[in-house]
Amino acid sequence: MFDFESCLKIGKGEYKRMMEPLIIKMGKLQREAKTKKIPVLIILEGLDASGKGAVMNELLMALDPRGYKVYSNNKDTEEELLRPFFWKFWKNLPGEGEIAVFDRSWYFSVIKNLNDMNKKEYKRRCQEIMDTETLLRNGKTSIIKFFLFISKEEQKKRFKKLDKNPSTSWRVTKEDWESNKNYDEILEQYEKLLDNTGNEKGVWNIVCSEDIDSAKVQIFQRTVAFLEKSIEQSGQDTLEMIPLKEKSFSLDSVNLVKSISRREYKKKLKKYKEKLMELEHEIYEKRIPVVLAYEGWDAAGKGGNIKRTVDRLDPRGYDVIPIAAPNDIEKKHHYMWRFWKDFPKGGHITIFDRTWYGRVLVERVEGFCKEEEWHRAYHEINSIESQWSDDGAVILKFWLHISKDEQLRRFKGREKTSYKNWKITEEDWRNREKWDLYKDAVEDMITMTSTENSEWHVIPGNSKRYARLKVMEIIIEELEKALKKREK
Amino acid sequence: MFDFESCLKIGKGEYKRMMEPLIIKMGKLQREAKTKKIPVLIILEGLDASGKGAVMNELLMALDPRGYKVYSNNKDTEEELLRPFFWKFWKNLPGEGEIAVFDRSWYFSVIKNLNDMNKKEYKRRCQEIMDTETLLRNGKTSIIKFFLFISKEEQKKRFKKLDKNPSTSWRVTKEDWESNKNYDEILEQYEKLLDNTGNEKGVWNIVCSEDIDSAKVQIFQRTVAFLEKSIEQSGQDTLEMIPLKEKSFSLDSVNLVKSISRREYKKKLKKYKEKLMELEHEIYEKRIPVVLAYEGWDAAGKGGNIKRTVDRLDPRGYDVIPIAAPNDIEKKHHYMWRFWKDFPKGGHITIFDRTWYGRVLVERVEGFCKEEEWHRAYHEINSIESQWSDDGAVILKFWLHISKDEQLRRFKGREKTSYKNWKITEEDWRNREKWDLYKDAVEDMITMTSTENSEWHVIPGNSKRYARLKVMEIIIEELEKALKKREK
Repeated sequence: MFDFESCLKIGKGEYKRMMEPLIIKMGKLQREAKTKKIPVLIILEGLDASGKGAVMNELLMALDPRGYKVYSNNKDTEEELLRPFFWKFWKNLPGEGEIAVFDRSWYFSVIKNLNDMNKKEYKRRCQEIMDTETLLRNGKTSIIKFFLFISKEEQKKRFKKLDKNPSTSWRVTKEDWESNKNYDEILEQYEKLLDNTGNEKGVWNIVCSEDIDSAKVQIFQRTVAFLEKSIEQSGQDTLEMIPLKEKSFSLDSVNLVKSISRREYKKKLKKYKEKLMELEHEIYEKRIPVVLAYEGWDAAGKGGNIKRTVDRLDPRGYDVIPIAAPNDIEKKHHYMWRFWKDFPKGGHITIFDRTWYGRVLVERVEGFCKEEEWHRAYHEINSIESQWSDDGAVILKFWLHISKDEQLRRFKGREKTSYKNWKITEEDWRNREKWDLYKDAVEDMITMTSTENSEWHVIPGNSKRYARLKVMEIIIEELEKALKKREK
Repeated sequence: MFDFESCLKIGKGEYKRMMEPLIIKMGKLQREAKTKKIPVLIILEGLDASGKGAVMNELLMALDPRGYKVYSNNKDTEEELLRPFFWKFWKNLPGEGEIAVFDRSWYFSVIKNLNDMNKKEYKRRCQEIMDTETLLRNGKTSIIKFFLFISKEEQKKRFKKLDKNPSTSWRVTKEDWESNKNYDEILEQYEKLLDNTGNEKGVWNIVCSEDIDSAKVQIFQRTVAFLEKSIEQSGQDTLEMIPLKEKSFSLDSVNLVKSISRREYKKKLKKYKEKLMELEHEIYEKRIPVVLAYEGWDAAGKGGNIKRTVDRLDPRGYDVIPIAAPNDIEKKHHYMWRFWKDFPKGGHITIFDRTWYGRVLVERVEGFCKEEEWHRAYHEINSIESQWSDDGAVILKFWLHISKDEQLRRFKGREKTSYKNWKITEEDWRNREKWDLYKDAVEDMITMTSTENSEWHVIPGNSKRYARLKVMEIIIEELEKALKKREK
């Protein structure tokens, strides 16, 4: 993999002659990629002192500074450590027409934490990396990855040179010298990791940077070729259609006559609220992130349900995120991007009032995305939810179900009650006409995305009282389960 | 100020009777405020154990959770500590139609840091608080502030009660007991602070919460009245016109014949780039945030100038933020909001390619804001820039100046050169027609906002080489000055 025979050396004159046309091309391609609205992700990995900084500067010099952002992934902030592994990367992913340069990435984060990982966790991370890159590519992001390597001797020489110059000696740390001593081991770790995550051929550009100028030329050549290809292929439909599983769930099977007396409701509600208050503190102590995902028919009672659930909670411990149509920044990103952004810190609760399942509900029904895209979304969502739960989060998903008649009753009721009629709009009536299309979509969704760690809870909602208690019961039960698991 | 004779006690029945209509009203007013696009900021301050949490929950219960966000300002994150004092508040300010509830605010932050502040700094902070609130109000944000107080005995009783219950005892800390011991002193500190920041009559709602139910009713009554007033007054023009100072600067006085030989340029450029590289590290060591604000005529050479300046810098240490028309989220906020967001951390450099001065340039010339608004903006900007620099930032502002003839030459040149013609648009030609209006605006801007800590540097730009070196010279000089100051 790290082929030292590929290490070339070029002269100053040749370097200039080769670089000049590449620089002009690069600027042109950046503008074209912007016009074509392609999100471009450039990942730069490599050994210490392999010249990532120099390469990056050369690259950025050729680009219009108004079109890219550089993100350094060398250290984790406090805030990032309280989030799932991929969180800090997602928030910096490029939107349409943007270029993001990652100075190190998920690969380095794996290597960095190698000692805290068992074999199973390592394998899982490798799989997640492959899934994430695939999912981003399918979401139209062009990704190019570079790995720079140098020999042990060259690395030592560079450290020494930096160390000797008083204006750069601060850059050489004890860890750097350590990494030179363990050079062989580290090289092997990278080799293994790159091997384990190579699901597509030729995706890694492994470049010898023993001679920096030669490395720069190679990186420019490959980036230019990569951008040309991305631009050429943009707009082409290459997504395969993934067939759906046969439905294993029908909304008709939900027993909607369940209800509860006012007296019992009051008694239980009080008890549950207190319990939830205690649990909020316990999950905070254990730094468990909790996601409550609410979906349901219009007028199914999501708002009132959320209200009761959070009633006694400390407002500093939870957030309610209402999901409406995406704003113009969100539209430029992958459909999961805005949900990652609001993912709770360890110990906090985020309640999504409507969710990422919009992809397979409203976007499917209204034709906002292609069939190939929403078919694929079930798998993408499963993959991301399993990342979240494997990283320690509790994910609870509720579908609040009511009958079509009950919805009609509530719509009419809302229209009549003066302080409620703001709640009912033309759109609600239009959605209602598409009841059967939505029913179909809901049944597919529940069939396709009820997984071991995040199954769907279908809540009978004709009785609001029953539905509220039921949701709270499930939250209590699941949080207690998660807390017990954590104790082990 | 803290009038214990105002402490009322009400019965359960009376509480219910009074609260119910208030709750319905509150929901209605929230929706109206949303329709009218009013940003609403509710600030909740108070003594420890004064019941802020209980009041907050009651308030939030009455609101639609989809319309507000709660922000706890009790602790600072790592990231926040590397930013100016007001940074963490700005990023959470409500946009149009949103409600933000601040659980503590800049007042608490002052009290918390009282021991690290001398008299002068304290006075400055008080002034900044008043300026910030005024500036937000003039930017259409409705602000209501509550301060909850209880007696020393009641506070002790509440701590004891929390401490006795095993599910709440974790909430009582050593600092809490400490604060009860120092009750009188703390109360006096708040009294002094509220006094020193009271620039408008009746703005503080100081509520005795010896009896929580009575406090809740009072807070609801006042919030309802406040929202009603805000809604009633929204859309009314109440801004006074602040007259401009007479121009003390004319662009005609700029000597544009300055230039420099190619040879000297190359020599100096290399030297300056290296110097900047060193300085980047030194400001990082000293954790100084640096803002480089670029303004200038179209085709004045901002892009190329920025490119040379950052050439040798470590890309992890700076960000270039290109400023285009605001996106739809930015449009909902105060015109300064998006610039606060990108304010550099201590030790980092942010380069704004166009800036907040858009308010007094393009917005003025194109009529995107009212005359009263841009007149006021000079003072608002001065106030915010002086906050930044007083909190330790270096702010350097450049106006890149070229002659009208030179602009024409460059426009035509861009049209002719194939790999440059993307740089010239219809809009550039339209702006050019308004040259005199812009000239007037630039001269007013430089007259009004060249302050001691952040003066304008007008850069003769007909010679690109000269302009590049000049900007770098100024940056070097000013950073060295700032570093020297820090050593003292």
